[in-house]
Amino acid sequence: MKLKEICSLLNGCLEGDPDLEIRGVNGVEEAAEGEITFLSHKKYLAALKDSKCTAAILPEGVSLETGKAVISVKNPYLAFAKLLGIFHPPIKETPGVSSQSVVSDSAVLGKDVTIYPLVYVGENAKIGDGTVLFPGVFVGDHSTIGFHGVIHSHVSIYAGMQIGDRVVIHSGAVIGSDGFGFVPDETGKRNKIPQVGKVVLEDDVEIGANTCIDRGTMGETRIRKGVKLDNLIQIAHNCTVGEDSVLAAQVGISGSTSIGKRAMMGGQVGVADHVEMGDDVMIVAQSGVPSDLPGKQIYAGSPTVKRNVWRKTQMALPQLPDLIKKVRAMEKRIEELEKND
Amino acid sequence: MKLKEICSLLNGCLEGDPDLEIRGVNGVEEAAEGEITFLSHKKYLAALKDSKCTAAILPEGVSLETGKAVISVKNPYLAFAKLLGIFHPPIKETPGVSSQSVVSDSAVLGKDVTIYPLVYVGENAKIGDGTVLFPGVFVGDHSTIGFHGVIHSHVSIYAGMQIGDRVVIHSGAVIGSDGFGFVPDETGKRNKIPQVGKVVLEDDVEIGANTCIDRGTMGETRIRKGVKLDNLIQIAHNCTVGEDSVLAAQVGISGSTSIGKRAMMGGQVGVADHVEMGDDVMIVAQSGVPSDLPGKQIYAGSPTVKRNVWRKTQMALPQLPDLIKKVRAMEKRIEELEKND
Amino acid sequence: MKLKEICSLLNGCLEGDPDLEIRGVNGVEEAAEGEITFLSHKKYLAALKDSKCTAAILPEGVSLETGKAVISVKNPYLAFAKLLGIFHPPIKETPGVSSQSVVSDSAVLGKDVTIYPLVYVGENAKIGDGTVLFPGVFVGDHSTIGFHGVIHSHVSIYAGMQIGDRVVIHSGAVIGSDGFGFVPDETGKRNKIPQVGKVVLEDDVEIGANTCIDRGTMGETRIRKGVKLDNLIQIAHNCTVGEDSVLAAQVGISGSTSIGKRAMMGGQVGVADHVEMGDDVMIVAQSGVPSDLPGKQIYAGSPTVKRNVWRKTQMALPQLPDLIKKVRAMEKRIEELEKND
Repeated sequence: MKLKEICSLLNGCLEGDPDLEIRGVNGVEEAAEGEITFLSHKKYLAALKDSKCTAAILPEGVSLETGKAVISVKNPYLAFAKLLGIFHPPIKETPGVSSQSVVSDSAVLGKDVTIYPLVYVGENAKIGDGTVLFPGVFVGDHSTIGFHGVIHSHVSIYAGMQIGDRVVIHSGAVIGSDGFGFVPDETGKRNKIPQVGKVVLEDDVEIGANTCIDRGTMGETRIRKGVKLDNLIQIAHNCTVGEDSVLAAQVGISGSTSIGKRAMMGGQVGVADHVEMGDDVMIVAQSGVPSDLPGKQIYAGSPTVKRNVWRKTQMALPQLPDLIKKVRAMEKRIEELEKND
Repeated sequence: MKLKEICSLLNGCLEGDPDLEIRGVNGVEEAAEGEITFLSHKKYLAALKDSKCTAAILPEGVSLETGKAVISVKNPYLAFAKLLGIFHPPIKETPGVSSQSVVSDSAVLGKDVTIYPLVYVGENAKIGDGTVLFPGVFVGDHSTIGFHGVIHSHVSIYAGMQIGDRVVIHSGAVIGSDGFGFVPDETGKRNKIPQVGKVVLEDDVEIGANTCIDRGTMGETRIRKGVKLDNLIQIAHNCTVGEDSVLAAQVGISGSTSIGKRAMMGGQVGVADHVEMGDDVMIVAQSGVPSDLPGKQIYAGSPTVKRNVWRKTQMALPQLPDLIKKVRAMEKRIEELEKND
Repeated sequence: MKLKEICSLLNGCLEGDPDLEIRGVNGVEEAAEGEITFLSHKKYLAALKDSKCTAAILPEGVSLETGKAVISVKNPYLAFAKLLGIFHPPIKETPGVSSQSVVSDSAVLGKDVTIYPLVYVGENAKIGDGTVLFPGVFVGDHSTIGFHGVIHSHVSIYAGMQIGDRVVIHSGAVIGSDGFGFVPDETGKRNKIPQVGKVVLEDDVEIGANTCIDRGTMGETRIRKGVKLDNLIQIAHNCTVGEDSVLAAQVGISGSTSIGKRAMMGGQVGVADHVEMGDDVMIVAQSGVPSDLPGKQIYAGSPTVKRNVWRKTQMALPQLPDLIKKVRAMEKRIEELEKND
């Protein structure tokens, strides 16, 4: 592809030979001659100058002062993501329903659906236009999947779930397992609370491999538009995850918790049950949230405090053993002073 | 269903019109006219008075003083769970073995077994009366499952495992993977210790989605009667989990650890290997247990201490940076005093 | 098997009746008459003297002074692992490809491959000699698996992955799911960065149940020779795990992190992205690694410090509330002294 075509696709501003032939995209360090790379942060500028790349996507207003061609754009990372998709277009499936799958007669399939072998689609399930079900997918009775979804191998969708358009679910994820609800009787035996609610995944949601989302006890567990969940995450019954939130791997959210819009959580964060969070919350990896969090703040620690408080405390912590000794010594000096007073 | 019928099923005491027609159960805030709800704690009494519900299940001795009908019982939460099961009875499967499944000739199936398509049942496996295997279940050779089990899609049961009656296993759970045992030789290479033991799940156990229970290295890993494990839990080789224990999501238990009866663990708790715990232990979420824990106590922190100690420490912790400054200042004042002494 | 045969297989030195018949191996406490056990640490010497075992494998230079037969070797634990494999040989599969599986015509199968029913093998995939695919395995297009692998039920191997020889993958593990990469645009919407790289599992790797390894965004995620990963682990895009490393269950490694050789991590450890670790690092369970770690050290805590620092701090921590009170009291005494000064 010629550089001028790339520039036009990215709505950028070109400095260099427009007819240069670009044959691939790559990271700054990995890029070879004939490839294009990008700069997201000025600190990589030196590495970029050393790169073997032929061209680079730069933020507007940054100049390179080397022989390399430059495309200037507002958001180079976003432009790079777009370009990566152009050079590596998703594999086009050949629509069709494998005869080695089991699709109930009452299931409703849209246009251009792809069902690989060894898939099970239950009674009255609906699969939207252009959706792909990889081998081993299980779709329970009455569950619905919207348009242009990609459901990878061995995903389990229990009966009665509701999945929006353009949803991607990675292998082994479980949508709609029972919430963890048991009532002890007087003997200590745990009696199961029937879990009769559902899971709703709204449009443009992506769910990571082996992530589990429990159905509502009653009502629903809802993952709102544009939410991205990484691998091995637990979302308990009756939670809500707000629009465009991103949760990193191994996060666990307890029952009936509500997370605001655009939340960002690092890996292995845990959140207690019935917690309410505001919008635009950021939580550092491995933190533990015991109670409500106001929005537009960064939190850390278990239990969470504001991140700057946590940082100071963590830096002070290794001084504690010496502090104890010092205080003990000071006490003796005070005693001595008091004797002489 | 008439209110008097509900009252009779719950062994309760009715105040109000016995012929009221009740068409559903719901939470206090969600309940609509014609529905019944429940009160587990007095603090929700005001919300209950505002609820649109027609009737409520209350603890004995609590009165409502509104026009709503009341059923008084000892344990309203338990009564509610029962009622939920009455209004939402589990779907009755039509027993039968799908011809699109692979069931070994030597496998022994009980009465009224349901085997969905795409299931694999190995040599000499036994499936008890009334048990349901959803699509994609794998049952290895010589494994046995008791009566009235429900094994959800994509559960893997390795060869030689032993599963009791009324056991529920959610999608993607793995029963009997190899324990994590390797011996380094003089070159640093890890040599596998053959894992030849089994997993025993006793009666009335429920296992969450994508939870993993490793087989014993030798001997067994045993999950005792009535234990409930949430999603994404790790139980290592040769552990024992005591009767009626409940472990929340993402808990990890290392090898050869023994947990007492009625343990309760919050999410993401980790327990070291070879730990012995007494009965009735409670452990706060995200705690880490390095060594034995006496029973009938509440623990928190990593490493765990008693919860009240942990709470005091956590509350004191953000004061540490200021404390260090204060001690430094005091030291100077002491030096000053000593000079003048 | 006669004791002298065992001794010869282990290259040991025998003290006792060479013709004793040994019918099994077992742990020190579980061993019965006719069985052989082993001693890894002198502290179990008393238990061994009480054991009902007929023979024991001991480290060279340790004597037992009981009637039991003794085989002396350099590394008794390693000898024991070997012996366990002799008494419990792995089940020999009968090679063959089930007609109830779906194997693409363009797939290339080696000699003596075993493909159970309900397996899917994609276009141009290669399966090496002697490899076993259990029911429900999914192998995507163009993926390759080496010699003598064991791929357990419901493992998902995405398209284009590369797996070495003698690799064992436990049930439900996912190899090659998309890395977690999204770029926000000016509206806060997350745009997916196409994930076009692959996963390489080198020879002699073992992967635990439900563990997830994401493909590289570009390039690769590489698990080097002899690495053993436990269950429910997350390895993000573009990570490298060094030779012979062992990671316990529920560890999470963020993107582009590089782990050295022979690393050992306890359960639930988390590591940030872009971290570089030296060789021979040990990390205590539940620790959190925020930045680079030099090799040949033991680390603990979140954020990690050296283990001895962490231990002292953890032991001091419960004294903090009292320390605060003491300092407050001392301050008053200083004020008093200053008044009188």
